[in-house]
Amino acid sequence: MPEPLGPRDSETRRQDALYRLGHDVDAWVATTDADSGAPRLTPLSFLWHDDAMLFATTTGSPTGRNLAANPSVQVGLGLTRDVVLVQGTVDVTPADSLDRELGDAFAGKAGFDPRRQAGLYSYFRLTPHSIQVWREEDELAGRWLMRDGAWTVQRS
Amino acid sequence: MPEPLGPRDSETRRQDALYRLGHDVDAWVATTDADSGAPRLTPLSFLWHDDAMLFATTTGSPTGRNLAANPSVQVGLGLTRDVVLVQGTVDVTPADSLDRELGDAFAGKAGFDPRRQAGLYSYFRLTPHSIQVWREEDELAGRWLMRDGAWTVQRS
Repeated sequence: MPEPLGPRDSETRRQDALYRLGHDVDAWVATTDADSGAPRLTPLSFLWHDDAMLFATTTGSPTGRNLAANPSVQVGLGLTRDVVLVQGTVDVTPADSLDRELGDAFAGKAGFDPRRQAGLYSYFRLTPHSIQVWREEDELAGRWLMRDGAWTVQRS
Repeated sequence: MPEPLGPRDSETRRQDALYRLGHDVDAWVATTDADSGAPRLTPLSFLWHDDAMLFATTTGSPTGRNLAANPSVQVGLGLTRDVVLVQGTVDVTPADSLDRELGDAFAGKAGFDPRRQAGLYSYFRLTPHSIQVWREEDELAGRWLMRDGAWTVQRS
Protein backbone atom coordinates (compact mmCIF):
# COMPACT_ATOMS: atom_id res chain seq x y z
CA MET A 1 0.00 0.00 0.00
CA PRO A 2 1.27 3.50 -0.71
CA GLU A 3 2.21 5.50 2.34
CA PRO A 4 -0.26 8.21 3.36
CA LEU A 5 0.91 11.45 1.83
CA GLY A 6 -0.77 13.98 4.12
CA PRO A 7 -2.72 16.96 2.86
CA ARG A 8 -1.92 18.45 -0.53
CA ASP A 9 -0.65 22.02 -0.56
CA SER A 10 -2.90 24.74 -1.99
CA GLU A 11 -1.23 24.99 -5.37
CA THR A 12 -1.49 21.22 -5.90
CA ARG A 13 -5.16 21.36 -5.00
CA ARG A 14 -5.73 24.23 -7.40
CA GLN A 15 -4.10 22.27 -10.21
CA ASP A 16 -6.08 19.14 -9.30
CA ALA A 17 -9.31 21.15 -9.26
CA LEU A 18 -8.58 22.73 -12.65
CA TYR A 19 -7.73 19.32 -14.06
CA ARG A 20 -11.01 17.92 -12.81
CA LEU A 21 -12.96 20.92 -14.12
CA GLY A 22 -11.28 20.44 -17.48
CA HIS A 23 -11.73 16.68 -17.75
CA ASP A 24 -14.77 15.54 -15.75
CA VAL A 25 -17.88 15.16 -17.89
CA ASP A 26 -20.65 15.39 -15.31
CA ALA A 27 -21.29 17.15 -12.02
CA TRP A 28 -23.97 17.08 -9.34
CA VAL A 29 -25.96 20.34 -9.52
CA ALA A 30 -28.00 21.44 -6.48
CA THR A 31 -30.79 24.00 -6.91
CA THR A 32 -33.79 25.09 -4.85
CA ASP A 33 -37.36 24.55 -6.00
CA ALA A 34 -38.88 27.99 -6.35
CA ASP A 35 -42.30 26.90 -5.07
CA SER A 36 -41.59 24.47 -2.25
CA GLY A 37 -38.09 25.54 -1.19
CA ALA A 38 -37.09 21.88 -1.41
CA PRO A 39 -33.57 21.05 -2.61
CA ARG A 40 -33.15 19.41 -6.00
CA LEU A 41 -30.09 17.42 -7.08
CA THR A 42 -29.38 16.61 -10.72
CA PRO A 43 -26.38 15.23 -12.59
CA LEU A 44 -25.54 17.39 -15.62
CA SER A 45 -22.77 17.42 -18.19
CA PHE A 46 -20.67 20.56 -18.26
CA LEU A 47 -17.92 22.32 -20.16
CA TRP A 48 -15.27 24.37 -18.32
CA HIS A 49 -14.67 27.42 -20.50
CA ASP A 50 -13.36 30.91 -19.81
CA ASP A 51 -13.29 30.29 -16.03
CA ALA A 52 -16.93 29.22 -15.90
CA MET A 53 -18.93 25.99 -16.04
CA LEU A 54 -21.37 25.68 -18.93
CA PHE A 55 -24.40 23.42 -18.44
CA ALA A 56 -27.47 22.76 -20.56
CA THR A 57 -30.82 21.40 -19.54
CA THR A 58 -34.34 21.65 -20.81
CA THR A 59 -35.79 25.08 -20.13
CA GLY A 60 -39.03 23.66 -18.76
CA SER A 61 -37.53 21.02 -16.48
CA PRO A 62 -37.61 21.62 -12.71
CA THR A 63 -33.85 22.29 -12.66
CA GLY A 64 -34.12 24.61 -15.67
CA ARG A 65 -36.91 26.56 -14.00
CA ASN A 66 -35.00 26.71 -10.70
CA LEU A 67 -31.87 28.02 -12.41
CA ALA A 68 -33.86 30.71 -14.19
CA ALA A 69 -35.64 31.77 -10.98
CA ASN A 70 -32.75 31.59 -8.50
CA PRO A 71 -29.21 31.92 -9.85
CA SER A 72 -27.59 30.57 -6.68
CA VAL A 73 -26.19 27.10 -7.31
CA GLN A 74 -23.87 24.58 -5.72
CA VAL A 75 -22.05 22.02 -7.83
CA GLY A 76 -20.17 18.95 -6.64
CA LEU A 77 -17.51 17.22 -8.73
CA GLY A 78 -15.75 14.00 -8.18
CA LEU A 79 -16.06 11.18 -5.76
CA THR A 80 -17.19 12.20 -2.33
CA ARG A 81 -13.71 11.58 -0.88
CA ASP A 82 -12.03 13.60 -3.62
CA VAL A 83 -14.19 16.67 -3.69
CA VAL A 84 -14.35 19.85 -5.73
CA LEU A 85 -17.30 21.91 -4.49
CA VAL A 86 -18.22 25.02 -6.46
CA GLN A 87 -20.66 27.73 -5.41
CA GLY A 88 -21.69 30.45 -7.81
CA THR A 89 -24.40 32.14 -9.80
CA VAL A 90 -25.70 31.26 -13.23
CA ASP A 91 -26.85 33.27 -16.19
CA VAL A 92 -29.11 31.76 -18.82
CA THR A 93 -28.53 31.65 -22.59
CA PRO A 94 -31.18 30.25 -24.95
CA ALA A 95 -29.84 27.26 -26.88
CA ASP A 96 -29.92 29.11 -30.21
CA SER A 97 -27.98 32.16 -28.94
CA LEU A 98 -24.76 30.52 -27.82
CA ASP A 99 -21.47 31.27 -29.56
CA ARG A 100 -21.07 28.59 -32.25
CA GLU A 101 -17.60 27.36 -31.34
CA LEU A 102 -18.59 27.14 -27.71
CA GLY A 103 -21.70 25.16 -28.65
CA ASP A 104 -19.52 22.79 -30.69
CA ALA A 105 -17.14 22.35 -27.77
CA PHE A 106 -20.03 21.63 -25.42
CA ALA A 107 -21.55 19.05 -27.76
CA GLY A 108 -18.18 17.37 -28.21
CA LYS A 109 -17.66 16.98 -24.50
CA ALA A 110 -21.21 16.26 -23.31
CA GLY A 111 -22.06 13.81 -26.07
CA PHE A 112 -25.29 15.59 -26.98
CA ASP A 113 -26.04 18.88 -28.70
CA PRO A 114 -28.78 20.97 -27.07
CA ARG A 115 -28.96 23.15 -30.21
CA ARG A 116 -30.65 20.30 -32.06
CA GLN A 117 -33.67 20.89 -29.83
CA ALA A 118 -33.10 24.59 -29.31
CA GLY A 119 -36.74 25.18 -28.43
CA LEU A 120 -36.42 22.84 -25.48
CA TYR A 121 -32.97 23.65 -24.08
CA SER A 122 -31.16 26.51 -22.43
CA TYR A 123 -27.48 26.87 -21.50
CA PHE A 124 -26.55 27.92 -17.98
CA ARG A 125 -23.17 29.52 -17.35
CA LEU A 126 -22.00 29.19 -13.76
CA THR A 127 -19.39 31.71 -12.65
CA PRO A 128 -17.69 30.38 -9.50
CA HIS A 129 -17.69 32.59 -6.43
CA SER A 130 -16.09 30.00 -4.18
CA ILE A 131 -14.30 26.70 -4.71
CA GLN A 132 -13.53 24.17 -1.98
CA VAL A 133 -11.22 21.22 -2.62
CA TRP A 134 -10.54 18.35 -0.25
CA ARG A 135 -10.16 14.61 0.05
CA GLU A 136 -10.10 13.44 3.65
CA GLU A 137 -10.48 15.18 6.98
CA ASP A 138 -6.80 16.20 7.05
CA GLU A 139 -7.53 18.49 4.11
CA LEU A 140 -10.52 20.31 5.57
CA ALA A 141 -8.22 23.09 6.72
CA GLY A 142 -7.18 25.09 3.70
CA ARG A 143 -10.04 23.78 1.55
CA TRP A 144 -11.18 27.26 0.42
CA LEU A 145 -9.23 27.74 -2.78
CA MET A 146 -11.45 30.53 -4.08
CA ARG A 147 -13.39 33.18 -2.20
CA ASP A 148 -15.39 36.07 -3.65
CA GLY A 149 -14.39 34.98 -7.13
CA ALA A 150 -10.62 35.15 -6.50
CA TRP A 151 -8.19 32.27 -6.04
CA THR A 152 -6.72 32.38 -2.56
CA VAL A 153 -3.56 30.69 -3.79
CA GLN A 154 -0.96 32.33 -5.99
CA ARG A 155 0.51 30.48 -8.92
CA SER A 156 4.00 29.34 -8.10
CA MET B 1 -14.45 -3.39 -25.29
CA PRO B 2 -17.58 -5.05 -23.88
CA GLU B 3 -20.65 -4.75 -26.02
CA PRO B 4 -23.25 -2.21 -24.86
CA LEU B 5 -25.84 -4.06 -22.88
CA GLY B 6 -28.80 -1.70 -23.13
CA PRO B 7 -30.88 -0.57 -20.19
CA ARG B 8 -31.04 -2.76 -17.08
CA ASP B 9 -34.43 -4.12 -16.13
CA SER B 10 -36.13 -2.81 -13.01
CA GLU B 11 -35.25 -5.70 -10.75
CA THR B 12 -31.57 -5.47 -11.70
CA ARG B 13 -31.64 -1.76 -10.97
CA ARG B 14 -33.28 -2.34 -7.62
CA GLN B 15 -30.59 -4.86 -6.68
CA ASP B 16 -27.85 -2.50 -7.91
CA ALA B 17 -29.35 0.35 -5.87
CA LEU B 18 -29.58 -1.76 -2.73
CA TYR B 19 -25.99 -2.91 -3.23
CA ARG B 20 -24.83 0.66 -3.56
CA LEU B 21 -26.87 1.76 -0.51
CA GLY B 22 -25.31 -1.09 1.43
CA HIS B 23 -21.71 -0.58 0.34
CA ASP B 24 -21.09 3.06 -0.61
CA VAL B 25 -19.57 5.06 2.24
CA ASP B 26 -20.45 8.64 1.26
CA ALA B 27 -23.26 10.42 -0.54
CA TRP B 28 -23.92 13.94 -1.75
CA VAL B 29 -26.61 15.52 0.45
CA ALA B 30 -28.54 18.55 -0.85
CA THR B 31 -30.41 20.79 1.59
CA THR B 32 -31.84 24.30 1.47
CA ASP B 33 -30.49 27.15 3.59
CA ALA B 34 -33.36 28.23 5.83
CA ASP B 35 -32.44 31.93 5.66
CA SER B 36 -31.36 32.52 2.09
CA GLY B 37 -33.15 29.69 0.29
CA ALA B 38 -29.83 28.87 -1.38
CA PRO B 39 -29.04 25.22 -2.07
CA ARG B 40 -26.29 23.56 -0.07
CA LEU B 41 -24.40 20.44 -1.15
CA THR B 42 -22.34 18.38 1.30
CA PRO B 43 -20.70 14.95 1.13
CA LEU B 44 -21.61 12.86 4.20
CA SER B 45 -20.95 9.28 5.27
CA PHE B 46 -24.05 7.16 5.76
CA LEU B 47 -25.27 3.80 6.98
CA TRP B 48 -28.14 2.01 5.23
CA HIS B 49 -30.18 0.43 8.02
CA ASP B 50 -33.78 -0.67 8.32
CA ASP B 51 -34.69 0.81 4.92
CA ALA B 52 -33.33 4.24 5.80
CA MET B 53 -30.07 6.18 5.41
CA LEU B 54 -28.41 7.29 8.63
CA PHE B 55 -26.17 10.37 8.48
CA ALA B 56 -24.39 12.36 11.19
CA THR B 57 -23.17 15.91 11.08
CA THR B 58 -22.50 18.63 13.61
CA THR B 59 -25.74 20.03 14.96
CA GLY B 60 -24.59 23.62 14.51
CA SER B 61 -23.22 23.29 10.97
CA PRO B 62 -25.20 24.85 8.11
CA THR B 63 -26.26 21.40 6.88
CA GLY B 64 -27.20 20.32 10.42
CA ARG B 65 -29.33 23.42 10.88
CA ASN B 66 -30.93 22.98 7.45
CA LEU B 67 -31.83 19.37 8.20
CA ALA B 68 -33.40 20.34 11.51
CA ALA B 69 -35.39 23.20 9.94
CA ASN B 70 -36.50 21.55 6.69
CA PRO B 71 -36.69 17.76 6.59
CA SER B 72 -36.86 17.60 2.79
CA VAL B 73 -33.60 16.27 1.39
CA GLN B 74 -32.17 14.90 -1.83
CA VAL B 75 -29.23 12.53 -1.79
CA GLY B 76 -27.09 11.45 -4.73
CA LEU B 77 -25.03 8.28 -4.71
CA GLY B 78 -22.48 7.04 -7.12
CA LEU B 79 -20.80 8.45 -10.14
CA THR B 80 -22.91 10.80 -12.16
CA ARG B 81 -23.30 8.22 -14.95
CA ASP B 82 -24.30 5.49 -12.51
CA VAL B 83 -26.83 7.28 -10.39
CA VAL B 84 -28.96 6.43 -7.37
CA LEU B 85 -30.98 9.52 -6.45
CA VAL B 86 -32.96 9.41 -3.21
CA GLN B 87 -35.57 11.90 -2.07
CA GLY B 88 -37.01 11.74 1.40
CA THR B 89 -37.46 13.37 4.77
CA VAL B 90 -35.19 13.24 7.80
CA ASP B 91 -35.77 13.01 11.48
CA VAL B 92 -33.12 14.08 13.95
CA THR B 93 -31.64 12.05 16.81
CA PRO B 94 -29.14 13.58 19.25
CA ALA B 95 -25.82 11.75 19.14
CA ASP B 96 -26.21 10.40 22.67
CA SER B 97 -29.72 8.98 22.08
CA LEU B 98 -29.05 6.56 19.24
CA ASP B 99 -29.45 2.82 19.72
CA ARG B 100 -26.03 1.51 20.74
CA GLU B 101 -25.63 -1.22 18.14
CA LEU B 102 -26.71 1.16 15.42
CA GLY B 103 -24.17 3.72 16.65
CA ASP B 104 -21.48 1.04 16.53
CA ALA B 105 -22.46 0.05 13.01
CA PHE B 106 -22.36 3.68 11.89
CA ALA B 107 -18.92 4.25 13.41
CA GLY B 108 -17.60 1.09 11.81
CA LYS B 109 -18.72 2.11 8.37
CA ALA B 110 -18.11 5.87 8.46
CA GLY B 111 -14.70 5.68 10.10
CA PHE B 112 -15.62 8.17 12.83
CA ASP B 113 -17.89 8.00 15.85
CA PRO B 114 -20.12 11.05 16.38
CA ARG B 115 -20.90 9.83 19.92
CA ARG B 116 -17.38 10.82 20.98
CA GLN B 117 -18.43 14.43 20.54
CA ALA B 118 -22.08 13.94 21.37
CA GLY B 119 -22.54 17.59 22.26
CA LEU B 120 -21.56 18.59 18.74
CA TYR B 121 -23.21 15.93 16.58
CA SER B 122 -26.70 14.79 15.65
CA TYR B 123 -27.81 11.79 13.61
CA PHE B 124 -30.22 12.28 10.74
CA ARG B 125 -32.32 9.37 9.56
CA LEU B 126 -33.54 9.73 5.98
CA THR B 127 -36.57 7.66 5.05
CA PRO B 128 -36.75 7.42 1.26
CA HIS B 129 -39.96 8.53 -0.44
CA SER B 130 -38.64 8.10 -3.96
CA ILE B 131 -35.62 6.43 -5.51
CA GLN B 132 -34.45 6.97 -9.08
CA VAL B 133 -31.76 4.75 -10.63
CA TRP B 134 -30.12 5.23 -14.02
CA ARG B 135 -26.83 5.21 -15.88
CA GLU B 136 -27.15 6.66 -19.36
CA GLU B 137 -29.98 8.24 -21.31
CA ASP B 138 -31.35 4.84 -22.37
CA GLU B 139 -32.24 4.23 -18.73
CA LEU B 140 -34.14 7.46 -18.08
CA ALA B 141 -37.38 5.64 -18.82
CA GLY B 142 -38.17 3.40 -15.91
CA ARG B 143 -35.82 5.21 -13.54
CA TRP B 144 -38.46 5.60 -10.77
CA LEU B 145 -37.89 2.50 -8.66
CA MET B 146 -39.69 3.87 -5.61
CA ARG B 147 -42.62 6.26 -5.38
CA ASP B 148 -44.48 7.35 -2.26
CA GLY B 149 -42.25 5.09 -0.19
CA ALA B 150 -43.08 1.89 -2.09
CA TRP B 151 -40.89 0.00 -4.54
CA THR B 152 -42.51 0.04 -7.99
CA VAL B 153 -40.85 -3.25 -8.89
CA GLN B 154 -41.81 -6.58 -7.41
CA ARG B 155 -39.17 -9.00 -6.29
CA SER B 156 -38.81 -11.81 -8.77
